[in-house]
Amino acid sequence: MSTIDLDKLLQGNRRALAKAITLVESKLDQHRLQAQEILEKVLPHSGKSIRIGISGIPGVGKSTFIEAFGLELIRQGMKVAVLAVDPSSPLRGGSILGDKTRMEMLSRSDQAFIRPSPADGALGGVAQKTRETLLLCEASGYDVILVETVGVGQSEYEVAAMVDFFLVLMLPNAGDELQGIKRGIMELADTLVINKADGESLQLAQRSQQHYQNSMHLIKHSSYWSPEVLTCSARQNEGITEVWDTIKNYRDASVSAQAFEQKRTQQNSEWLKKLIHEMLELRLKQNPEIQSVMPNLQQDVINNKTTPYKAAKHIVDLL
Amino acid sequence: MSTIDLDKLLQGNRRALAKAITLVESKLDQHRLQAQEILEKVLPHSGKSIRIGISGIPGVGKSTFIEAFGLELIRQGMKVAVLAVDPSSPLRGGSILGDKTRMEMLSRSDQAFIRPSPADGALGGVAQKTRETLLLCEASGYDVILVETVGVGQSEYEVAAMVDFFLVLMLPNAGDELQGIKRGIMELADTLVINKADGESLQLAQRSQQHYQNSMHLIKHSSYWSPEVLTCSARQNEGITEVWDTIKNYRDASVSAQAFEQKRTQQNSEWLKKLIHEMLELRLKQNPEIQSVMPNLQQDVINNKTTPYKAAKHIVDLL
Repeated sequence: MSTIDLDKLLQGNRRALAKAITLVESKLDQHRLQAQEILEKVLPHSGKSIRIGISGIPGVGKSTFIEAFGLELIRQGMKVAVLAVDPSSPLRGGSILGDKTRMEMLSRSDQAFIRPSPADGALGGVAQKTRETLLLCEASGYDVILVETVGVGQSEYEVAAMVDFFLVLMLPNAGDELQGIKRGIMELADTLVINKADGESLQLAQRSQQHYQNSMHLIKHSSYWSPEVLTCSARQNEGITEVWDTIKNYRDASVSAQAFEQKRTQQNSEWLKKLIHEMLELRLKQNPEIQSVMPNLQQDVINNKTTPYKAAKHIVDLL
Repeated sequence: MSTIDLDKLLQGNRRALAKAITLVESKLDQHRLQAQEILEKVLPHSGKSIRIGISGIPGVGKSTFIEAFGLELIRQGMKVAVLAVDPSSPLRGGSILGDKTRMEMLSRSDQAFIRPSPADGALGGVAQKTRETLLLCEASGYDVILVETVGVGQSEYEVAAMVDFFLVLMLPNAGDELQGIKRGIMELADTLVINKADGESLQLAQRSQQHYQNSMHLIKHSSYWSPEVLTCSARQNEGITEVWDTIKNYRDASVSAQAFEQKRTQQNSEWLKKLIHEMLELRLKQNPEIQSVMPNLQQDVINNKTTPYKAAKHIVDLL
């Protein structure tokens, strides 16, 4: 891989940015090392964007929403990067149709940068790569970073742990609420947006809005922000500006309460801890002695021949 | 601490059991070592009970339920042990009033053994100690182990990870459902029991039952068991036998599907992994070099001077 032109990246050159991201996403150890050097250099230039997580089940209209929302931000003079965290499709590298097809208008704008979900990697997985890509995009001058996730498994938590604001898209169907609550979504969401609030679904969307407003009320939140419940129609481009206004209100409230930077600090600190654990796990996996005794020890635990405590101590002593 | 008479413990001697548990709960390294020796010896005699987790928010009537339920089991010829996992009151060693006062009738029976929540310990915390106490009680001939938890933080997940059957007590108030769902309780519960279904609350309890039955329906469960929603009045001793019948049905279905032992195997294996991680974390904490560089590294991460990845690598390399 050729060297990255850091100046060009910082000036907003798309090719330099794309190349740096490819390096970040590489599984080769030498690339990983190179990527960390670059990241360290761009760090002082990062952090200036607002990072927005966008989640919602398939069919909720995420692509349509992101396209409408991104175009509105560009219309207001901003540069927008769209990243995806989609652990369900590591091989496809993102969505079924390909992100550029999904967001055709947005992808044609030179103020937008769209990057599909990276294939699963070694340490930290998709989330680690997306975090690093986010920093590169910020250093390259993007004002808003949208991190998209399908609501599968842990990915919502991972995205919530790397963004300033977490937005959950919902369908105008009050019967859906359990599915959402089940995933702990209500606790993660800084705002719920009920999409497809148009035509015959408009009334249903409004009823849902009422319903979710009541539910959100019962959940404990921060002192400076109570999550809102909005409706929009991404397809008809209605209610999109209001979503951005809400996010700006959040940012202002959060900055005033000195919580904005504090949240990022907290996120970095948690991330450091998580990485330390993952690295230790990797060392366990890569230790040939441990790997050779592990199956027997596990069997002994299962067969009540030893306690988990003794088995664990044996393993750790080998490291 | 005097030596434990293992034979007496296996014969059901309460004093020998209590002394072994005290050893398990000790924070002293030498006791810990001794405890592991004993545990290894009793392991072949453990595993014969049914382990039941009982959760529910304060005020739901847990003590009254456990007393009524425990006495019913004793009436049917069984020996019952009651353990508690209550991370919220490490100093008090259990409940506010003391477990024996809470379950006066049960505590007087020589077929019952009640042990309050251990104070928080080193490795594995309260959950580790409760697991080990559970094994000791089984080896000492208890047929049913009830592990009680207040629904605080992680404790429900910890208890669900050490029992065969997880029972959640609810109040006869349909408005409560969000609180329950929020904690992921619906996914953990093998059965919901709405307590205080008596007097003026009877109708409300029945409406709640209907409501929860609908909700539980939407949650994906195992092939061999669909969680039930029961009502009872622990105070009036109504519906208690039915709870036990349901648990027996669960055990039969689970054994038939070869899932009973498989679940325990899985739990042991997860527990081993968790202990390995906790031991590694302990080594990090006890490493003076790591402890001296850690604050600076964290500060560098926060101030964007280095990436979490590089900082983590630095730490792990020191171990």
